[in-house]
Amino acid sequence: MFRFTTSLLFTFTLFLVGCQPANPENVSENTPEQESGTPAYAIALHGGAGTITRDRMTPELETEYRTMLNAALDIGEGILQAGGSSLDAVVATIEHLENSPLFNAGIGAVFTHDGRNELDASIMDGRDRNAGAVGGVSIVKNPIKAARAVMENSPHVLLTGIGADGFAILQGLDTVPNTYFFTQKRWDGLQEVLEAEEKSLGAIDFPDSKYGTVGCAALDLNGNLAAGTSTGGMTNKRYNRIGDSPIIGAGTYADNKAAAISCTGHGEYFIRNVVAYDVVARMLYQNKSLQEAAGELVYEVLPASGGTGGLISVDRFGNVAMPFNTEGMYRGYAKAGERVVAIFKDE
Amino acid sequence: MFRFTTSLLFTFTLFLVGCQPANPENVSENTPEQESGTPAYAIALHGGAGTITRDRMTPELETEYRTMLNAALDIGEGILQAGGSSLDAVVATIEHLENSPLFNAGIGAVFTHDGRNELDASIMDGRDRNAGAVGGVSIVKNPIKAARAVMENSPHVLLTGIGADGFAILQGLDTVPNTYFFTQKRWDGLQEVLEAEEKSLGAIDFPDSKYGTVGCAALDLNGNLAAGTSTGGMTNKRYNRIGDSPIIGAGTYADNKAAAISCTGHGEYFIRNVVAYDVVARMLYQNKSLQEAAGELVYEVLPASGGTGGLISVDRFGNVAMPFNTEGMYRGYAKAGERVVAIFKDE
Repeated sequence: MFRFTTSLLFTFTLFLVGCQPANPENVSENTPEQESGTPAYAIALHGGAGTITRDRMTPELETEYRTMLNAALDIGEGILQAGGSSLDAVVATIEHLENSPLFNAGIGAVFTHDGRNELDASIMDGRDRNAGAVGGVSIVKNPIKAARAVMENSPHVLLTGIGADGFAILQGLDTVPNTYFFTQKRWDGLQEVLEAEEKSLGAIDFPDSKYGTVGCAALDLNGNLAAGTSTGGMTNKRYNRIGDSPIIGAGTYADNKAAAISCTGHGEYFIRNVVAYDVVARMLYQNKSLQEAAGELVYEVLPASGGTGGLISVDRFGNVAMPFNTEGMYRGYAKAGERVVAIFKDE
Repeated sequence: MFRFTTSLLFTFTLFLVGCQPANPENVSENTPEQESGTPAYAIALHGGAGTITRDRMTPELETEYRTMLNAALDIGEGILQAGGSSLDAVVATIEHLENSPLFNAGIGAVFTHDGRNELDASIMDGRDRNAGAVGGVSIVKNPIKAARAVMENSPHVLLTGIGADGFAILQGLDTVPNTYFFTQKRWDGLQEVLEAEEKSLGAIDFPDSKYGTVGCAALDLNGNLAAGTSTGGMTNKRYNRIGDSPIIGAGTYADNKAAAISCTGHGEYFIRNVVAYDVVARMLYQNKSLQEAAGELVYEVLPASGGTGGLISVDRFGNVAMPFNTEGMYRGYAKAGERVVAIFKDE
């Protein structure tokens, strides 16, 4: 109800300001944080979107997911409350999710067609839009840390394959044998897809083989935004396929002038529609609120081209939007005195 | 002079239409093609931007470049005049540039730190925003064809490394040993950078080691836009670095509602600023002309973050923009009864 009123107020103000050129300042006047004038922090995260329904979930597993999402939020929120940077909060939160076998990132990543794990991650700093990403790493324990190292300690944005693994070694990051990422559940998932493929004599589109990512967006007390995303990609992926997660603009974007965004879903559609950046573009160029811009991408643009998934996002005033067009999305956010963790559509 | 008048007319009409919501139709009323109502074709290409000045160029080499740019334009224009698709024109034009040792794409590509050639390419279809790309292929004779095969014959957008090479083999594309791409000039270029690095005891930022790409954007007689980009990347690149050329949104974008764009320059800045897609976003959301939108990216956004380079672009009415912020850019365009090929800034 509160959001609805804010949205109405915003629409009315838009009417009042008429056809002034795009100016994010207009947005600020309609957010509680800006009105109160006190610095705000906010953090949002996701653990993937897909066919996540109550009838496919045991109460025990549901509790495990909610506990893990809360624990990850605790870590990120703790850093922000202590005055830490949004970059630090994003990396620590994602690292925690990568280290949980529940999610398709780090340990617990899905398997490629060849029975290996190839991981993608990216991070972006909203202060100067610096960014780093790795695609297809196979021995880096926490790909999000490799993405940060690319951003901070190389002139590059995107490193791939064994080159990126080598860079991570030189950076002194924790490395592990590829078998570290193994979980029985993901292995069985691959076998299931391979068997179905054999029966159909060709590649098939397997529901939910393309979902599962973790991501985080945060605003710190200094007003700096950051976003990051990490994934094992699609079950049964081939040919060193890279999805949207390590693509700046598609899976991840952050700009202090607007918002920080991390996406999850069928990556190819997020690349073609430049989803993460387009949220920012609609805010900056069309004066839209985060809620409006993110909603348009997830409920209009993506479905129009057949794309499924969702995103989590935080704007420069600490507003949070977490739209998704699938049956569920592991998600949550925290602000001062506010905490939400949810899985299903009806929450 | 003609462009200036058109631009004035456009500005005036923008004033008349006032603050209507973003609508590319407004643009159409101010272009000659739209006014005449006859279908138009247009094709633009580039062969890289950088420190390209008259005193660094022999008359013979200059003639070679101009001849090759004209020959590539002939091929693309011929396809369009015969009623062929913009996709076919873009691929054939880029293939011709890839097959010339003059440009940093295909044969004549720059060398990695390890003395190999790793090639990137991407293509996008403005009709449905389908897209394909390859990063770091090493045995595909024409990477632009591999990008098209990814778009048309796989569910993916981006394949990398030996996986992408393997996919190209399965697609029956021409493959070559990595040594096929060798040219003495590029090899000497790598040695020069390596020696300078040894003297300075570390990685150095070598002028022009990061430029050189080929790209093409086209509008066909059916009103369909397409864009493509192909490159050998940066001299002395390491860790399987991938630049903006195979990144949809950064180096390449095409949308029939607005324009087709191919970029060249210091790729990392093009990724962080999502340059190719941002041209489209400014046209669609801010009602800007192609000339304005492309100019803002190249003369304002990129320099503000330290990014150098340029782009070539064609809008849905056949207007062409080719801005660059370096000393030169190999470039050209063709429309019915109009042909421009240029290299230096003062042309």
